[in-house]
Amino acid sequence: MSEERKFRWIGTRPIRHDGLDKVTGRANFGADFSLPGMLHGRVLRSPHAHARIVSIDTRPALALEGVKAVLVGADLPDIPSQIGSGGEQQVDFRDLSHNVLARDKVLYDGHALAAVAATSPRIAAEALERIVVEYQVLPHVLTVDEAMAPGAPILHEDMFTKGIEPTPSEPSNVAGRVELGHGDPEQGFADADVILEREFTTQTVHQGYIEPHAVVARAGEDGQCMVWCCTQGAFMVRAYCAKLLGLDVSQIKVIPSEIGGGFGGKTTVYLEPLALLLSRKSGRPVKMVMDRGEVFRASGPTSGARVRVKLGAKRDGTFTGADVSLYYDAGAFKGSPVMAGGMTILAPYKIPHVKIECFDVVVNKPKVAAYRAPGAPISAFGGESLIDELADELGMDPIELRMKNAVSEGTKAVYGPKFRRIGFEETLEALRSHPHYSAPLGPNQGRGVAAGFWFNGGMQSSASVNVNEDGTAVVISGCPDIGGSRASLALMAAEELQIPVERIRPVVGDTETVGYNDLTGGSRVTFATGMAVIQAAQDVVAQLRKRAAKIWEVELDGVRWEDGRAICTNGNGETPEPLTIRDLARRAARTGGPIAGTASLTARGIGPSFGAHICDVEVDRETGRVSVVRYTAVQDAGKAIHPSYVEGQMQGGAAQGIGWALNEAYLYDENGRLENPGFLDYRIPVASDLPMIDTVIVEVANPMHPYGVRGVGETPIVPPLAAVANAVRHATGVRFCDLPLSPPRVLEGIEAAR
Amino acid sequence: MSEERKFRWIGTRPIRHDGLDKVTGRANFGADFSLPGMLHGRVLRSPHAHARIVSIDTRPALALEGVKAVLVGADLPDIPSQIGSGGEQQVDFRDLSHNVLARDKVLYDGHALAAVAATSPRIAAEALERIVVEYQVLPHVLTVDEAMAPGAPILHEDMFTKGIEPTPSEPSNVAGRVELGHGDPEQGFADADVILEREFTTQTVHQGYIEPHAVVARAGEDGQCMVWCCTQGAFMVRAYCAKLLGLDVSQIKVIPSEIGGGFGGKTTVYLEPLALLLSRKSGRPVKMVMDRGEVFRASGPTSGARVRVKLGAKRDGTFTGADVSLYYDAGAFKGSPVMAGGMTILAPYKIPHVKIECFDVVVNKPKVAAYRAPGAPISAFGGESLIDELADELGMDPIELRMKNAVSEGTKAVYGPKFRRIGFEETLEALRSHPHYSAPLGPNQGRGVAAGFWFNGGMQSSASVNVNEDGTAVVISGCPDIGGSRASLALMAAEELQIPVERIRPVVGDTETVGYNDLTGGSRVTFATGMAVIQAAQDVVAQLRKRAAKIWEVELDGVRWEDGRAICTNGNGETPEPLTIRDLARRAARTGGPIAGTASLTARGIGPSFGAHICDVEVDRETGRVSVVRYTAVQDAGKAIHPSYVEGQMQGGAAQGIGWALNEAYLYDENGRLENPGFLDYRIPVASDLPMIDTVIVEVANPMHPYGVRGVGETPIVPPLAAVANAVRHATGVRFCDLPLSPPRVLEGIEAAR
Repeated sequence: MSEERKFRWIGTRPIRHDGLDKVTGRANFGADFSLPGMLHGRVLRSPHAHARIVSIDTRPALALEGVKAVLVGADLPDIPSQIGSGGEQQVDFRDLSHNVLARDKVLYDGHALAAVAATSPRIAAEALERIVVEYQVLPHVLTVDEAMAPGAPILHEDMFTKGIEPTPSEPSNVAGRVELGHGDPEQGFADADVILEREFTTQTVHQGYIEPHAVVARAGEDGQCMVWCCTQGAFMVRAYCAKLLGLDVSQIKVIPSEIGGGFGGKTTVYLEPLALLLSRKSGRPVKMVMDRGEVFRASGPTSGARVRVKLGAKRDGTFTGADVSLYYDAGAFKGSPVMAGGMTILAPYKIPHVKIECFDVVVNKPKVAAYRAPGAPISAFGGESLIDELADELGMDPIELRMKNAVSEGTKAVYGPKFRRIGFEETLEALRSHPHYSAPLGPNQGRGVAAGFWFNGGMQSSASVNVNEDGTAVVISGCPDIGGSRASLALMAAEELQIPVERIRPVVGDTETVGYNDLTGGSRVTFATGMAVIQAAQDVVAQLRKRAAKIWEVELDGVRWEDGRAICTNGNGETPEPLTIRDLARRAARTGGPIAGTASLTARGIGPSFGAHICDVEVDRETGRVSVVRYTAVQDAGKAIHPSYVEGQMQGGAAQGIGWALNEAYLYDENGRLENPGFLDYRIPVASDLPMIDTVIVEVANPMHPYGVRGVGETPIVPPLAAVANAVRHATGVRFCDLPLSPPRVLEGIEAAR
Repeated sequence: MSEERKFRWIGTRPIRHDGLDKVTGRANFGADFSLPGMLHGRVLRSPHAHARIVSIDTRPALALEGVKAVLVGADLPDIPSQIGSGGEQQVDFRDLSHNVLARDKVLYDGHALAAVAATSPRIAAEALERIVVEYQVLPHVLTVDEAMAPGAPILHEDMFTKGIEPTPSEPSNVAGRVELGHGDPEQGFADADVILEREFTTQTVHQGYIEPHAVVARAGEDGQCMVWCCTQGAFMVRAYCAKLLGLDVSQIKVIPSEIGGGFGGKTTVYLEPLALLLSRKSGRPVKMVMDRGEVFRASGPTSGARVRVKLGAKRDGTFTGADVSLYYDAGAFKGSPVMAGGMTILAPYKIPHVKIECFDVVVNKPKVAAYRAPGAPISAFGGESLIDELADELGMDPIELRMKNAVSEGTKAVYGPKFRRIGFEETLEALRSHPHYSAPLGPNQGRGVAAGFWFNGGMQSSASVNVNEDGTAVVISGCPDIGGSRASLALMAAEELQIPVERIRPVVGDTETVGYNDLTGGSRVTFATGMAVIQAAQDVVAQLRKRAAKIWEVELDGVRWEDGRAICTNGNGETPEPLTIRDLARRAARTGGPIAGTASLTARGIGPSFGAHICDVEVDRETGRVSVVRYTAVQDAGKAIHPSYVEGQMQGGAAQGIGWALNEAYLYDENGRLENPGFLDYRIPVASDLPMIDTVIVEVANPMHPYGVRGVGETPIVPPLAAVANAVRHATGVRFCDLPLSPPRVLEGIEAAR
């Protein structure tokens, strides 16, 4: 990658290819698909946080006219505990099966325990009411503290904490402990002039995607299955359904619909295996659509957590040591993103002595799923809050303090490898020089800054570029487009082919259209699938040059590709007229056949991305209400393929982070029932809650990507939690360590400080 | 190609992959697709064979509640006369546009002249009745003889016969004349001991596919279009619609449905451009489905024709010369398959002096479309009948006579090139030694034989082979499967990968799934697309070997692929365990990413295919009814990939040829209106009309194909017309030269001979 490369299409802002479909309603989302003879499926969900299922009687439901199939846990095959991966996150297929349909116990309010398929949604709903379940209600735990308390009710009698020597003989709600770090923290603190330590808590929050989970599935008499669904990974759905139902992946075709948001929440399966099984039982296609309450109660939010951070520094601000404990809840089955929280919390900083211990804890809440930079905002809330406090303590500018300790090329990351060329210093520099940072504040206003780090996934991608006979081209990828990847992939193909991006048609294929693709997640698609598109397009250009060489009867190295045309640089005698891609496409039949390129790869050379945000808040000291009045996000994108989309990602991530900081939380009653499973009571920010979020794209090219791309989608949700809390601290003088900063909590803090 | 290659999967008869879908009704055909908000389109068709359109008033139709759009010819762009090709046959896009929707004149009963889209089929039908058309009826011509008669009404005032020097100054219904041949026929006849000459006629016949033409189209506000239709070529539909509507091909996505028969009749467009234009006008998706009457009146049957053959031979049977004139009607627009008729009529024989003149003639009937071996059965009816008569004349066995003159490797074909290795002699040998040929005949029974020849299309194909993570594979092609190509392509992939064919899933992609593919036709798919699949699968095997070499840390040439496994032949020290495709697929992520192969090519090395049939008939001398009592078809398949499908093709072709010989014909009244546009009056053979058709597959490998494949789908319709007529001749003593051999005609012939 040469940073000086001049781009023609990359970096421009064409109208998105999928825009009109979405604006006109022509795009087909998960619930927009139907099949003749289709049944409607519904799920019976536990009203208890924790209970033994004594008995289920489904006969009254089956007896109802129009009910064609009923499922209970025993209808799913037993699967041994087995860790697999469908993409970003590891999954235990036994747990997944038990989450999809409970067996002996229900483990959270909303846990699926039976499903029906009927000729209408109304009949299906009525059938659910007829299923008779006898529960033995058990005591429950909702937080990591409750779960780890001595004598706490145990969710899984066969779970013993991993990562502790010797392995405990008593079952525990702590699934595992992992330790990261280097050096000797005691030494680090001995070297320090100032040491701060605090504990922080965050609440369970949901991604809040607009589109609920939806599926239409058809299981054929020959075992051949079709699944239409909204998902971040068609190949993931295929693999998970195959595993859960004991099928070959080749028996399942998964067609990903247009997707109305995912943010990580659509990286696993809930309804898909049930719909397939109901279809197999009934012999008819089955459609299932969650309502909003089901999305909140039974799809995966992210962890509630406790974060302890201890940090030591010299008087001049040099970090000397850190000691961190992270306790993340995983919901009802092991597998919180605590490791990622540990890997990222101090990743932006050089610290000689670091110890980070990570605890994965099960509780009686829905199993967590990925949520944008999974785990990182939680730990960063603690880390970046404490760094802010340290800056106050040392009387240093908080950006200066971060700059002093910032990682750069060659620094060994806390999580292991040495950084290649990265742009954290440039990002902080851009933040510091932004007019926002020196703008005056009004009364009751405060300003906070925070930094954030996220990886950039690699994994497997396949893509094809097919040239049409008129010289236009189709770009086929297999990653559902959740954040503008069709636009970025089309731009990359345009850049390689050197033709206008409007002459490229980007499409997302199904599992029988394109080679294997890991899911859309980990900020990987523009990076990794982009690499596949670039390779496929380069293959096409090579073929175009070959065709021209054949037509001109010259050697291949006498043909240059420029400006969408083959140019003869080595004619025998007079130089022939250039041949455009259109000319060559038209003559393809006579020069060797269709022109199509394809590439499959496991992407290497991920480019870590750093961001830093400034947040101004105004606090109403009478009500405790916090208003974000100005917000600026700066981020190193490596190279922004379509800058509007990068800006959109930065704005969207900031908005979600602000919601997490200020209002969002799962609220449970004493019986462990979720009290706010809807957007009226679960308050995500709406447009009127937020100012325009200003963005600055920094471009420090990722040396391992042909265009310098870094993933951009996740980093922007990492800084806001601390940026908001730091701003509130400077507006009120009160350090808040527990989210959300809702009016009652802020008011209470202000009053306590008086 | 080594003829000795041992196959493991090729030549077996697995259950077809698409069988269960079709048996259970799960397969989705053209009319099985719907979109929300969809309108229903209908076409107004001319009741006149030839008329000037004085005026069309569509206002009363538009005024009807529920009518959303009305089209007339003026709504289609004017296109200059321009010859293009979407695959098998050349097309003049100006003619195509005028066939899709008439402009100033209607040229046949059924010619489309307006179309409507309404909220229900009933309203659309009512709207058609409200369109007021004023016609000036013109005299019409229905046969080549009428069309060529002096003073005949002229269909196209701007059409002057091509291929005649000097170009005539008067317009003509003869679109063109082409002459083929070599040597000097006069010399050939001078060398002859026996000369025979006869004229033959055949009638317009329809392919008789079960599924009528159907389409759902959607034109977006941004010009992006989607077409779902039953067709033999999605890329052809895309190209033709783009041309007719002035769009880029990249603006149109065509999804081919499952197809209920085509036989060449679905190699052009009728409804698709109308549906797109109605959708553009109405802003809604539009569905259009022909009824059976429309299929007969307005889709393309094949030519009615007159065939004159003169043949000279020595007393020992050696052919000395031939002189042939072929007059084929093209329907209302130029472009009959007369050239193919000329190229094939004498292709099986060595003749030193040959002249064949071919006339393409327009008449007031629907524009012909391809029909299985287009043009060849018509001319073969003449040629093979006359050869039979010559055998009688010379007192020779008719197979012996053909054998004496049979082409073989190195013979220069009448149509130009030298034959490579072919299997005509082997085919005749198999025919002669078949028990059928020496079986005794009953009273009023006769036996006829005839030979037939057809090419084997090459053209452009693309295919992909994607390995799933469990070691199964998907084979994607872009040619709709009309004759079992999914099964044959899956077998080829299985053979290369050396895995069971059940672990291969063959699918047909749409125009945004796979690289460019010419249409399904010309017996080309198993041959040409098969080559692409073989190449793609070989690419996959190469990658599998590479992955294994990487895992074992050995050189690539130390890895053999055998039995679906990589075997290390060059281990360092102890030999590692073989790695199966499943092992390698599971480890793909860590060894370089997904394993997928693709290939695009223009297929070369077509392998001509020869067939020869024996037909026994019994003639009821009271009624003239001819019953086929025994039938045997022999054909050189090169290599039968899935023998059941090859046999099915042979049986199906024979059945269609028998129908053509005995009963099928378009019957027009004096006003040029088709009198039998339905299966009750247009008599195709039903199961009870036919005996079991016995088949013998000869395998003389095509040296230009890796497995030796020759196209097999079309050849079997070439011999039956003459085989039946020759059998009737031997049963009755009467030589019939005019088809069909319907009871009245046969009775008349018998009575005239008395």
